[in-house]
Amino acid sequence: VRTKQSIETAARDARYKFFAQVARRRRCRTIFLGHHADDLVETFLINLFRGAGTGGLSAMRGVSVRKIDKVKLRVVRPLLGISREQIDDYVRKHRLKFREDASNKNLAPLRNRIRHRIIPEIEKQLGRNVRGTIWRAATIAAEEENFFEALLPDKLSKLTALAVKPLRAMPIAVQRRMLHEWLRARDVPDLSFDLVERVRALLDLSNRAAKTNLPQDRHVRRRAGQIFVE
Amino acid sequence: VRTKQSIETAARDARYKFFAQVARRRRCRTIFLGHHADDLVETFLINLFRGAGTGGLSAMRGVSVRKIDKVKLRVVRPLLGISREQIDDYVRKHRLKFREDASNKNLAPLRNRIRHRIIPEIEKQLGRNVRGTIWRAATIAAEEENFFEALLPDKLSKLTALAVKPLRAMPIAVQRRMLHEWLRARDVPDLSFDLVERVRALLDLSNRAAKTNLPQDRHVRRRAGQIFVE
Repeated sequence: VRTKQSIETAARDARYKFFAQVARRRRCRTIFLGHHADDLVETFLINLFRGAGTGGLSAMRGVSVRKIDKVKLRVVRPLLGISREQIDDYVRKHRLKFREDASNKNLAPLRNRIRHRIIPEIEKQLGRNVRGTIWRAATIAAEEENFFEALLPDKLSKLTALAVKPLRAMPIAVQRRMLHEWLRARDVPDLSFDLVERVRALLDLSNRAAKTNLPQDRHVRRRAGQIFVE
Repeated sequence: VRTKQSIETAARDARYKFFAQVARRRRCRTIFLGHHADDLVETFLINLFRGAGTGGLSAMRGVSVRKIDKVKLRVVRPLLGISREQIDDYVRKHRLKFREDASNKNLAPLRNRIRHRIIPEIEKQLGRNVRGTIWRAATIAAEEENFFEALLPDKLSKLTALAVKPLRAMPIAVQRRMLHEWLRARDVPDLSFDLVERVRALLDLSNRAAKTNLPQDRHVRRRAGQIFVE
């Protein structure tokens, strides 16, 4: 049985595969997405409440790089600093034609509750606007994510095994991102925070368990000071 | 006119000064505080909604070091992983005597709204418990804060001037923490995110303004490739 979250992950992967396909066909390496400030705030809260994985509080970044099927795609979101209201005003003022993406409707239930119930309740209780402060927290998280990403070794995704000792010597925040990135490169689906933590527990040599299960009948094993996906 | 937030900051500083005083008198360097998991979650949300400064989403850490009046105080919070309910159960089961800190009541209004209105509304809308996922996000933020703190130069608090060029070459996340720490060591009060950002803007040499105001008639000036507090 696939969880709701894993279906969403699969849908996102499919969407990015499509982007990569188009990019390859059109020989371009950068894609612009239209997420705006309200999307950023709502996604931040969704991730926070649902339990974001490593780096999950920084889900949307102004510029990020994603490797899909050997295509390195630069994803740029130039509108993250602009609110939906400002965009609507601009569209109206300049009489621009636009098309509503039908898939937006699928996002509706949870995002709508965040937008129409949760944020207004927070603002009512605090007696002030909170979108601005949440936007800032999300933006800071995104910049910190850029920083952590820059720390990851280049060839990480190509390594079939990771040496335990140097990894264990790194700060926890880096261990988590390295394992996350490495597992993703090994095509492990549904990379939850808990899964990464279970793998991270293998770095502790006093932990007698030298194996932890992954989805789809695979597992990570520690042997001779290294960890592998099998 | 002091803002509400600056009064709270002053109260916190006074509390820490008292801790440092007692620590000096008793010749101890470590203090244990009783914050528990629910405190962590609620403080995380308060900081998020009110606009946390740099590192603000990690307000409570299991172990942190604070320098107060030349006393280096280790602050340990061993109960951050235990819920209030678990503590109450334990106290009841073992018939322990306890004393309620009267100052807890002052925290009540905002914290109570978070506890009794906002979190229940979020849980109602999402149909699930969210304390656990927020706790995790707060814990990850705290670990990342430890990581960033370890990057700061040891002597940072002693520098009366900071060289612009090397600072500008650092990742934004590090620039922010360095400036925050440096300004704090210069006794600048009310260190908001916006204040740090204004100082950070001085690092941009194309920015013709070479000065930005601080509270209490002080300012930060850029001159000859360095910034100073005057």
